[in-house]
Amino acid sequence: MEDIRIIEVKQSVFADNDADAQRLRSQLKKEGTVLINMMASPGAGKTTLLKKLAKEFEGNIRFAVMEADIDSDVDARAMLENGIDTVQIHTGGMCHLDADMTRQGLKELGSSEYDLVILENVGNLVCPAEFDTGATANITVLSVPEGHDKPLKYPLMYETCQLLIVNKTDVLPYFDFDCEKLRKYAKMRNPDIEIFFASAKTGDGIAEIAGWIRDRLMV
Amino acid sequence: MEDIRIIEVKQSVFADNDADAQRLRSQLKKEGTVLINMMASPGAGKTTLLKKLAKEFEGNIRFAVMEADIDSDVDARAMLENGIDTVQIHTGGMCHLDADMTRQGLKELGSSEYDLVILENVGNLVCPAEFDTGATANITVLSVPEGHDKPLKYPLMYETCQLLIVNKTDVLPYFDFDCEKLRKYAKMRNPDIEIFFASAKTGDGIAEIAGWIRDRLMV
Repeated sequence: MEDIRIIEVKQSVFADNDADAQRLRSQLKKEGTVLINMMASPGAGKTTLLKKLAKEFEGNIRFAVMEADIDSDVDARAMLENGIDTVQIHTGGMCHLDADMTRQGLKELGSSEYDLVILENVGNLVCPAEFDTGATANITVLSVPEGHDKPLKYPLMYETCQLLIVNKTDVLPYFDFDCEKLRKYAKMRNPDIEIFFASAKTGDGIAEIAGWIRDRLMV
Repeated sequence: MEDIRIIEVKQSVFADNDADAQRLRSQLKKEGTVLINMMASPGAGKTTLLKKLAKEFEGNIRFAVMEADIDSDVDARAMLENGIDTVQIHTGGMCHLDADMTRQGLKELGSSEYDLVILENVGNLVCPAEFDTGATANITVLSVPEGHDKPLKYPLMYETCQLLIVNKTDVLPYFDFDCEKLRKYAKMRNPDIEIFFASAKTGDGIAEIAGWIRDRLMV
């Protein structure tokens, strides 16, 4: 198996991350690469989702993943085992990625070779939402076991995303999760938010998410 | 129902949080109040755990809860509805509490009136572990749906706690959660860590956790 490329990213030297993120976004547009920033709590199922999405893109879209973590290469290893091009970004203890850290990862990955790159941000509902990574779009993943009240407690995470994926719908019968309340709370934070329900484990809803990414972001 | 006391805490003016945390710890010891800092991912079940623990302490221990959140009063409301003394701490967007923010909450609560106060920190596996709150002990909660690999990805959260509670054991049959691997990874980060398995929903294991708090921290 190919070795895992691990990048120890350095904190940005740019004082103005927003301006730097705009620069990165322009550059990616010029290169024809779409970058998605995927954010969620730890254990919401981002890695399994990415494995399933990769299958949808196979043969059509040149796809790669950047795995950001404080430590370990668990997720990057999972990607490689599934034949998905990947780099592991280590944040050196940082709780989020900024635009320049994202740029360091893209450079190592060789992002211009890909149509679509998904950045799996550090599992955290607070800090990643505060830093524009330069991505084309933000996707937030909420898993059923976390409960439907999360948009009330973590406003910015829901305000800054275009798509919300409610994952692990296969375990809905075992949790007190109210889909209608979730929808109401998420729309309260962000009236334009789009919501898909899915189970990365069973594959339910994955084709629809892949369709949204293709139709909305890759035209 | 009693009104919810919401405190908008200000960021600390102290440059040296570690020294400030030591001061707070000494003060609490003098007053005879044990403070536990409970940390976890969003949706790990901290609030339900606290409701069940409160029942164990009823009549024996003067117990109160501080609910820290970026926004909302969902958790403090749940406490009050269960007759548990509580204050809601709003962090103003901050991803963690430091010792001085904790002190502001304790002051509003009137902590010297209690034998035991549990601080429910902001749901986040990264930042809260970096800031000593001045608590007597740290408890980390991991829920089964998050997966057994979390100690690999969030080292500091496991290094800084004395007790790890693995919650939501009632859904073990529906997830690929390996209890032995979890034990191994947690001990790798922290050889002295104690681990209890529990389900706040069914009440399984709650008496043992209350016993540990009484025997280890309140002597």
